[in-house]
Amino acid sequence: MLTRTNALSLTDQLSERFAERIRSRLLAPGARLPSVRDCARQHGVSPHTVVAAYDQLQAQGLVEARRKRGFYVRDAAVRPAPPPNAAAMVAAPPIPADASSLIRGMFHRPSAKPQPGMGVFPPDWLDSTFMPAALRRVTAGPVLQELSLQYGEPAGDTALRRSLSQKLLGINVPAAPEQIMTTIGATHALDIVSRTLLRAGDPVMVEEPGWAIEFARLEALGMRILPVPRRADGPDLDVMARYCSAGDGHRPKLFVSVSVLHNPTGYSLTPGSAHRLLQLANQHDFHIVEDDTYSHLAPDHATRLCALDGLQRTIYVSGFAKILAPNWRIGYLAAPPALHARLLETKLLTTLTTPAIFERALAWCIDQGQLRRHSERIRVRLDAARQRTVKLALAAGCSFVSEPAGLFGWVETGVDTDALTQRLLDEGYLIAPGSLFHARRPPDTRMRVNFATAQDAQFWKVYARVREELR
Amino acid sequence: MLTRTNALSLTDQLSERFAERIRSRLLAPGARLPSVRDCARQHGVSPHTVVAAYDQLQAQGLVEARRKRGFYVRDAAVRPAPPPNAAAMVAAPPIPADASSLIRGMFHRPSAKPQPGMGVFPPDWLDSTFMPAALRRVTAGPVLQELSLQYGEPAGDTALRRSLSQKLLGINVPAAPEQIMTTIGATHALDIVSRTLLRAGDPVMVEEPGWAIEFARLEALGMRILPVPRRADGPDLDVMARYCSAGDGHRPKLFVSVSVLHNPTGYSLTPGSAHRLLQLANQHDFHIVEDDTYSHLAPDHATRLCALDGLQRTIYVSGFAKILAPNWRIGYLAAPPALHARLLETKLLTTLTTPAIFERALAWCIDQGQLRRHSERIRVRLDAARQRTVKLALAAGCSFVSEPAGLFGWVETGVDTDALTQRLLDEGYLIAPGSLFHARRPPDTRMRVNFATAQDAQFWKVYARVREELR
Repeated sequence: MLTRTNALSLTDQLSERFAERIRSRLLAPGARLPSVRDCARQHGVSPHTVVAAYDQLQAQGLVEARRKRGFYVRDAAVRPAPPPNAAAMVAAPPIPADASSLIRGMFHRPSAKPQPGMGVFPPDWLDSTFMPAALRRVTAGPVLQELSLQYGEPAGDTALRRSLSQKLLGINVPAAPEQIMTTIGATHALDIVSRTLLRAGDPVMVEEPGWAIEFARLEALGMRILPVPRRADGPDLDVMARYCSAGDGHRPKLFVSVSVLHNPTGYSLTPGSAHRLLQLANQHDFHIVEDDTYSHLAPDHATRLCALDGLQRTIYVSGFAKILAPNWRIGYLAAPPALHARLLETKLLTTLTTPAIFERALAWCIDQGQLRRHSERIRVRLDAARQRTVKLALAAGCSFVSEPAGLFGWVETGVDTDALTQRLLDEGYLIAPGSLFHARRPPDTRMRVNFATAQDAQFWKVYARVREELR
Repeated sequence: MLTRTNALSLTDQLSERFAERIRSRLLAPGARLPSVRDCARQHGVSPHTVVAAYDQLQAQGLVEARRKRGFYVRDAAVRPAPPPNAAAMVAAPPIPADASSLIRGMFHRPSAKPQPGMGVFPPDWLDSTFMPAALRRVTAGPVLQELSLQYGEPAGDTALRRSLSQKLLGINVPAAPEQIMTTIGATHALDIVSRTLLRAGDPVMVEEPGWAIEFARLEALGMRILPVPRRADGPDLDVMARYCSAGDGHRPKLFVSVSVLHNPTGYSLTPGSAHRLLQLANQHDFHIVEDDTYSHLAPDHATRLCALDGLQRTIYVSGFAKILAPNWRIGYLAAPPALHARLLETKLLTTLTTPAIFERALAWCIDQGQLRRHSERIRVRLDAARQRTVKLALAAGCSFVSEPAGLFGWVETGVDTDALTQRLLDEGYLIAPGSLFHARRPPDTRMRVNFATAQDAQFWKVYARVREELR
């Protein structure tokens, strides 16, 4: 909050707050600052103070005034100026220009408070004694030098690929160690798949709502995104069939899907939908990459496309950032044998190999059953957190778009959640607005809440007040 | 060698040898097997044995017979069949179809013998006590959980970026920690740069001869490679000027260069060439990415483009795979401030973050001066190895294309080195043929030798014999 007892003037405090948000990209190039009147009301200061603060930002080169349209965050010299679409500009809400900007913002905690917009568990949930023990086993003896001083196996540590093969068998995905490849997180796996199967300009089907990084990455690679509405039972197959009936050269070659505990809705694919989806894929000859990032939070009997299909035209992707150690960056994929060699070449061209020490330590955690027990403990704790968060959210006037499940709730707020994001940042809270989960980022009244970090009565009190102000 | 005392028949031994080479991609899809007569002579067996072995390979689906043209390695189902260019096929030497295949082959040591074609030091050269000590410091205390259980800094560990900033100051490259970003090896850094600055179809200038991974990666991204001959003093500026005088939309936006201890020639850029090159870049408005992978083997006063230019339109890339621990996969880049934000977005979209534990351990190695002393020891040892290898190579009838320096020698053999590669594989040696270092892989009589792994009299004896047979 701005305060008159601070060593800095109110103007300095206000301009510094915006400056920091611009530098950390929570306000991205092209975003519009609030109007002087709105800003003055929000912060309880005079319009004169706001004008002075905006002038400071302009003098620092951080924002630019556009005649009769307000103040906009400036670009850092290299980017092309935003298109001169005046009509669109006037209406533009103060949102980041692209999804990756907001994702970068999400690495920047605005305060020490619990952050309902985060995509991961709080670090203390992941704390364990077995993880350090596993790493010590690998780094204490001569195996450290053995694993460090050569590039290592291109496909990834052999011990881990064997463990993963066994683990996949437990969810009925038949993948020999030779079909598996480790990656720098699931993100890298998805990147490898799209770079191998697609060329710039190719159409690709992606579930919507869906994960912002996937939209941003495919866009950066120059792919043409075909959004597929995600429903409770699975993707909208009618929409997919229409995409597939396009002329030669316009037919999508790939569908990107989160079958189980879909982000952000929490939906899981039904067996019937899975069967029909695979039939469609066979009929129109496209591949499916199944992103099973949330597998550790799901029951083993959940329906997975790769299990039904037996990795014929499906590629399985998952990782351990959500359950063990986000910074170890261990992801992997399992692919049809004929595709594996091509995917491995892409891995070699992007990172050569991946760090084997973490991979060997993870193999031990899996083989000893430690990771399974750890996941069970987290599931129990998450169930309790979810119950508590749901109660608080309902009491604060939210409704749930989908049945609460997994890590995330998909919540209807009744107000524009891009505006809500900026207002809650003023209070020290980061939320994940609905627009983040759409390819084109239209205004959206929903938000995604992390059940583990949103079980905080104080947040919901602030939320309810700010939401009232925005109505 | 094939042997009659082996439990397997000569036919089985021969077919198994080819099968393994095909599976490990040292013989890539599209490569032609030796003629029956040549193969029989080479292995001292009857033509009947060779025909039987080739038949076995055909039955296993690994090769296919093409009428009157011989046996070719088959594709693994997914790749398009090679173009039906009969004339080219007949003349085609038995070489891998693409560079990344051979690179994959290079991870597969054909025997326990020293491998003159390797791109790194033998593991025992890198062995040290300070590296395990550094890693133990980071993994023993609470810092392990702190670094593991969150995604970490998008740009990379802050402690390492501070150390790197200091280190770069030592070679007169002015890079604040905020201009630096860690990556999964230098390969990932080069990938991030080209993905950020180029779009599919864009022309890009690359030194030739040059590193195969760079050619293969740019090609996989759909870029148009403009080869620039590399000379002793630097790249051929006349050729570059011609590329730059192309019409709008055809002008290259990027030049990829290894200024210091260029791979494979060992050349280092002169100050005069560097100055003129930067003038050209300013005049034609292109960026330069300077790959300083071999910096640890070079004197600090070597000329670097980034030092002259002060990171205005240059991007510095380096890593620690060559000097500390190949499998830790620590690389980094330093960029102009305005570019840094864009490059960081690409990093986020490809791997999110990078493992901070190794980065923190490396920071300690740098700060304590351990890495500098280690590099000095290796340079002394390499100088001795180089002297020895040069003597052996000259005695075996080679000549050096360029003054021997750094890790690699660029050697004229007088025979086709693709053919030499296959023949030496039969003897258990992997070499790096000249064609590997060219964008289009034309036949070449040169090869790159690793001074550290080629100081082996036995290799040169075998080399001299096989070379005689090929003349």
